[in-house]
Amino acid sequence: MELVEATWRIIARRGIEGATMREIATEAGFANGALKPYFPTKDDLLSFAFAHVFNQTNARIGTVSGGLKGLAALRSFCHEILPLDAERLNEARIAIAYWQRALTDPEKAALHDRSMEQWRRELFGRLREARDAGELKGGLEDDDVVGGIMTFVLGAQITATLSPSHHSPEQLRSQLESYISLLAASGAPGAVEGRTK
Amino acid sequence: MELVEATWRIIARRGIEGATMREIATEAGFANGALKPYFPTKDDLLSFAFAHVFNQTNARIGTVSGGLKGLAALRSFCHEILPLDAERLNEARIAIAYWQRALTDPEKAALHDRSMEQWRRELFGRLREARDAGELKGGLEDDDVVGGIMTFVLGAQITATLSPSHHSPEQLRSQLESYISLLAASGAPGAVEGRTK
Repeated sequence: MELVEATWRIIARRGIEGATMREIATEAGFANGALKPYFPTKDDLLSFAFAHVFNQTNARIGTVSGGLKGLAALRSFCHEILPLDAERLNEARIAIAYWQRALTDPEKAALHDRSMEQWRRELFGRLREARDAGELKGGLEDDDVVGGIMTFVLGAQITATLSPSHHSPEQLRSQLESYISLLAASGAPGAVEGRTK
Repeated sequence: MELVEATWRIIARRGIEGATMREIATEAGFANGALKPYFPTKDDLLSFAFAHVFNQTNARIGTVSGGLKGLAALRSFCHEILPLDAERLNEARIAIAYWQRALTDPEKAALHDRSMEQWRRELFGRLREARDAGELKGGLEDDDVVGGIMTFVLGAQITATLSPSHHSPEQLRSQLESYISLLAASGAPGAVEGRTK
């Protein structure tokens, strides 16, 4: 939605408390009051901003992982969620604001749940492909790996925005590679970044 | 500080927007206005609440890891940060509210930075002990492991509060064990939970 596309980065930059609806509208180039019919409150706007960045992330995942499978696809998936550039750092700032509100707002929590379920399903599918291709070492529980990756990619929204000197794009990629190489059977094709691209 | 001890759980439960200073004071059993001289704004109270839960976590870590070293100490350290019980779930809710404010408040960001540095130093020390004791497999970069664990334990504050059906205490412990067993040299004493306790 055009209004959301025009406003989410303003919210990301200023914080959800940092601007009034009037200021957000003005800064986005809309007439004062233009947002009100669609987003009666900033909380509504934040929910749409979260859905927008979630969809935008998924569109990128679809693009970069076309043709990839198994560990290579899992890596691409994580790269699009990890805050590895300015756009994704802005997305992280929306996620953090959204989480805080979701703690006390059941509707926001439900949307978050459905969104994360979609990511979990994708991860389980990629792990299955990886196992079928002989890329994974034995003895791993999918639940542990999927749960661990979900926790890592969500945690990276925090560490990348608040501890950037230790969680730069290069460092986050390296942390991910370290984990993937621990999961991989020795000599697996997707175990080393770029090998199957 | 007594006022913080009496109020942080109220903030955790109701959210930082969910109550006025007056309501927080009343619910904590103080006279209306009692908080004001110490915490002029809710934002001040939130900073003290964050510092309080950070110190409380560190006090627990000190207690449980007395006498432990290497991977066993690293495990205990993570257990006290992971939201594995009601008290630590409340702590997670304070952390999430605090992160959101820290995105646009340099003082809050600086306190977060100092706090996380303290945890990073502890993790580097535990890894060194683990390596010296022959508990770690070869080829691991400490930067990757420390960065990965920090990202995981912070991410768990989100997944435990917002996706509890996939990140219950048992599941979080299992995710951590899965990772520790991937780090460990085969047969290392601290590789299996409880082995060195």
